Amino acid sequence: MVADAASRAAELSDAALAGDRLALARLLTAVENGTPTAEAALRRLYPTAGRAHLVGITGPPGSGKSTLVAALIAEVRAAGRTVAVIAVDPSSPITGGALLGDRVRMQAYASDDGVFIRSMASRGHAGGLASTSTAAAAVLDAAGFDLVLVETVGTGQSEVEVAAMADTTVVLESPEMGDEVQAIKAGLLEVADLVVVNKGDKPGAQRTAAQLRAMLVAGAPRTDRDGVSERPRPKRPDVLITTAASGAGVPELLAALDRHRAAGRVGESSAARLARAESQVFAIVAQRLRTRLGDPSHAAETKALVGEVAAHRLDPYSAADRLLDEAERG
Amino acid sequence: MVADAASRAAELSDAALAGDRLALARLLTAVENGTPTAEAALRRLYPTAGRAHLVGITGPPGSGKSTLVAALIAEVRAAGRTVAVIAVDPSSPITGGALLGDRVRMQAYASDDGVFIRSMASRGHAGGLASTSTAAAAVLDAAGFDLVLVETVGTGQSEVEVAAMADTTVVLESPEMGDEVQAIKAGLLEVADLVVVNKGDKPGAQRTAAQLRAMLVAGAPRTDRDGVSERPRPKRPDVLITTAASGAGVPELLAALDRHRAAGRVGESSAARLARAESQVFAIVAQRLRTRLGDPSHAAETKALVGEVAAHRLDPYSAADRLLDEAERG
Repeated sequence: MVADAASRAAELSDAALAGDRLALARLLTAVENGTPTAEAALRRLYPTAGRAHLVGITGPPGSGKSTLVAALIAEVRAAGRTVAVIAVDPSSPITGGALLGDRVRMQAYASDDGVFIRSMASRGHAGGLASTSTAAAAVLDAAGFDLVLVETVGTGQSEVEVAAMADTTVVLESPEMGDEVQAIKAGLLEVADLVVVNKGDKPGAQRTAAQLRAMLVAGAPRTDRDGVSERPRPKRPDVLITTAASGAGVPELLAALDRHRAAGRVGESSAARLARAESQVFAIVAQRLRTRLGDPSHAAETKALVGEVAAHRLDPYSAADRLLDEAERG
Repeated sequence: MVADAASRAAELSDAALAGDRLALARLLTAVENGTPTAEAALRRLYPTAGRAHLVGITGPPGSGKSTLVAALIAEVRAAGRTVAVIAVDPSSPITGGALLGDRVRMQAYASDDGVFIRSMASRGHAGGLASTSTAAAAVLDAAGFDLVLVETVGTGQSEVEVAAMADTTVVLESPEMGDEVQAIKAGLLEVADLVVVNKGDKPGAQRTAAQLRAMLVAGAPRTDRDGVSERPRPKRPDVLITTAASGAGVPELLAALDRHRAAGRVGESSAARLARAESQVFAIVAQRLRTRLGDPSHAAETKALVGEVAAHRLDPYSAADRLLDEAERG
């Protein structure tokens, strides 16, 4: 079984590195499902990764993320570079969702080996969404893509974290949004390296951009709502205006991404890469422990302790301490 | 320090159980911040909890969650029962957000000891959002509230999980929504015990409800998008229509909640309670390990391993295995 996974992983990895897109797709499916093949493949591919520029793109529903991703793909390809996209977004047209125009545009890349697009469910990942998407990004990175874009909807804890763990995090804003979305936006700005006011042709785009620049200068310290500091913001994020549907502003966005990377804040020891590595490693540690506690020698004790907690006869801290002792017994 | 936390916890817990709302609020702040006081208090309070009916309320932005929660509070109070609300929603009017009408309605309960409302940031929880909100719910449960409502925005992995872990999960739908939101809705239906079409006075509400009933009868098996089964759905969820703004349909919603509870699927050994206990215990296990690996005797090794992963000189699985060995060394 493990030997099978290892040989299957070697086969798929080598094929994916050689440019076999079907093998790459299968590898990503294994990663999404958390199979032994995925682990073996990632162990093999990981040393080859680390060269791609990982860009997170997030924003509230309706801010035009997918349209912007489509425009950015065109720009990256025009510049002769390659790009992979992971769309962690139930509503992404890439995943069969909403906007016909985008789907048509995406199909234009079906025969272009310099573009690879992959949708990913936001739920059902054993080690968590961040862990799965980071692993998928590492596979695409190893496969040689220059840019790896991760698109997430900016209204969930996990989804925002995924985008925030990228080398460069782009937060989309839209000039035309209701109060509910305004509140979501405020939280998102915390994680932005670049802020993009999309739908730049709509009335209010210039005013929205000006307001954002003012807010970001006034510079409330970068903290979350509990007053806990997030990863330090190295500098005030630039605010750009794009009209993704027409492509206006998209060359400037790509240039800004390149500047952010070149500014030396995107490297193996950057805060974002360390945070990503830490999050990934601890997710695996937690998963390992959970697997161990579910194996035949511990499952009965684990089930009994969880049952006691569910019945409120034992508090969860005491149960956790006993499970840790149990796990360390081997 | 630990003794301080324990005595502080005892003091706050006893006061909260005796009905001191300020002590209760302080306890919830400690829970949100993950302090030693919170742990000590939860150990103390946990055996007293387990009697409240925990109801998750989730839906896409704009579906009227907060307005429905306000209407449900009024209905619960009219029935002579008590209710606490945890609003995990950046856009909730309860947290100072959008809708003036709701805020005014909420203020009506400022002097009513049978209602307790608390907002909670969706980000920045060391053990994860699910762990924090479950702990907060246990405190409110121990404090004696008959119902504990947890309101989350239904577009994030963590947020949907939080609502899905309740005894009864209510998913809101709104008849007037764009394609992007439609796609979000489809994913949400998977976790629903009850489906509510809110804004029932809008055109299309009846048609939306009929479509939902047809969908839910046709009964695609309850799986997530990867084909992985979620917790088993005991029966087809009822579809109700409410107009939260006027209160129409809200008595029927409360009756449906009571029926779901009475149907015997809400008990200490119910699937939802076991899943909640398991998730909470494992979150604490992971947090304990992380704390241990960050303490002075392990921090240097942990930091070095994470750095090697960030530099792609070591894969994250090997790093995780070494960290587990390290943690077990004591």
